[in-house]
Amino acid sequence: MKACLINGMLIEDSTHAIDVMDRGLQYGDGLFETLRVANGAVRFWDAHYARLQSSCERLDIPAPTAIQLQNEASQVIGSTRDAVLKIIITRGVGGRGYRSSTKSLPTRIISLHDLPIALPLDGGIEVRWCNTRLARNAQLAGLKHLNRLEQVLAQNEWRDDSIAEGLMMDTEGELICATAANVFVVSSGVLVTPDLRFSGIRGVMRTQVLAAAQTLRIEIDERALWPDELSTASEVFVGNAVRGIRSVVKLEQQTWSVGSVARSIYEHLQLSQ
Amino acid sequence: MKACLINGMLIEDSTHAIDVMDRGLQYGDGLFETLRVANGAVRFWDAHYARLQSSCERLDIPAPTAIQLQNEASQVIGSTRDAVLKIIITRGVGGRGYRSSTKSLPTRIISLHDLPIALPLDGGIEVRWCNTRLARNAQLAGLKHLNRLEQVLAQNEWRDDSIAEGLMMDTEGELICATAANVFVVSSGVLVTPDLRFSGIRGVMRTQVLAAAQTLRIEIDERALWPDELSTASEVFVGNAVRGIRSVVKLEQQTWSVGSVARSIYEHLQLSQ
Repeated sequence: MKACLINGMLIEDSTHAIDVMDRGLQYGDGLFETLRVANGAVRFWDAHYARLQSSCERLDIPAPTAIQLQNEASQVIGSTRDAVLKIIITRGVGGRGYRSSTKSLPTRIISLHDLPIALPLDGGIEVRWCNTRLARNAQLAGLKHLNRLEQVLAQNEWRDDSIAEGLMMDTEGELICATAANVFVVSSGVLVTPDLRFSGIRGVMRTQVLAAAQTLRIEIDERALWPDELSTASEVFVGNAVRGIRSVVKLEQQTWSVGSVARSIYEHLQLSQ
Repeated sequence: MKACLINGMLIEDSTHAIDVMDRGLQYGDGLFETLRVANGAVRFWDAHYARLQSSCERLDIPAPTAIQLQNEASQVIGSTRDAVLKIIITRGVGGRGYRSSTKSLPTRIISLHDLPIALPLDGGIEVRWCNTRLARNAQLAGLKHLNRLEQVLAQNEWRDDSIAEGLMMDTEGELICATAANVFVVSSGVLVTPDLRFSGIRGVMRTQVLAAAQTLRIEIDERALWPDELSTASEVFVGNAVRGIRSVVKLEQQTWSVGSVARSIYEHLQLSQ
């Protein structure tokens, strides 16, 4: 971690920073955003803030203002050119057991981290299937909340660095996402992505990809996606806010090339910059 | 909070206690136990430790030894006669994103809290239905892990103190539990409790209740339980390690008396002491 601000205070000792009774720790009672700092600016800030605000609303946690968050983000970023910015909002401290106190003040944690080593789109990535399934709950679907044990268990299924991501199904067998990215499939020229009505995170990059596709007049279909549809797909790619878009070139016995749809969206979103 | 020990160190400032990068906070990557201290002793210690150990195993988190935990619990309890002891084990600090580091050391948080105001069995409690549903995931079912957003949202559905608990269904409509207790129903003389194959927490009190029923030669049936079965039930009660057993006497338009099965198990487990 490069820097961290908690409730507006710069943290000098990150190892003794959080209240042991914070509901984020006690129950996973909160949400987060992971943002890409590129050339000193936060990419897709408005989209991240809009999602944070709507997620807070769904969980009934008061959202910080955009101005406050933006000021604090700037303070943490300083003169850093390229990094990952993480914002956590928890319901704060207080309440008796699971029930929160109406008087609790949310906790705001804004931290800056080194960028993971990224490969250009052209390389493509190898992915695998995860055994860990995603539970279905429409009430929580789409939210980037702090209950992420399924993703942790899924990523812990492999340690081979040549495999960059794992695809996850929900408990009914629908293909939902990669462990830390949304998934997109091109089939008969149509860009298909899971509708996330029961599980998965509605990623900021997902929204950007769909908007770019619309501008580029690529037909879009948000619907239930099943694993066997990969066998007839002409392209598969994954996307998240930090790593942008990455084409899948290998999944077990299946292989693909980096396709024209991924490439045109990648270029349209200027993700190489 | 009355006292707290983190990784063996007595915490003086609980507001600056936890590493901001602890995976318990970042992802809910951990588990907990809530234990009852009665007359200066921890009730059902062995059962709690056994569950903690098996939960750690299922999540692949190294478990602390029983001796170490017991020593630390004694230190936190001191001369306190009646209290709630909470043990949290997280996967600790480290890793890149969701994937944990194989070198991480788990975080041990042992804290002592005031006992909630308890009513004797004879009073009975009123409960309600919660709208929040429990997601189904066999891989996590039964575990008392730190991903508890569903329980938080469920308890936040009401603020009326005359209603002591909320009953929760899973996404398919099975009756699973109360927000912070297991649920038991007596139907035609048989003690029925949900089998928790897809969701819910396998509570320590649940195990005690079933063992007591066996000793008392009460027939037991662990199976899928549906809400409409409540209408023909002769008794309904809920149980957890902190509050013991509480008979349900009212649920919306339905009413029950404190029944003989709940009473005999309550007495057998000496929960009044």
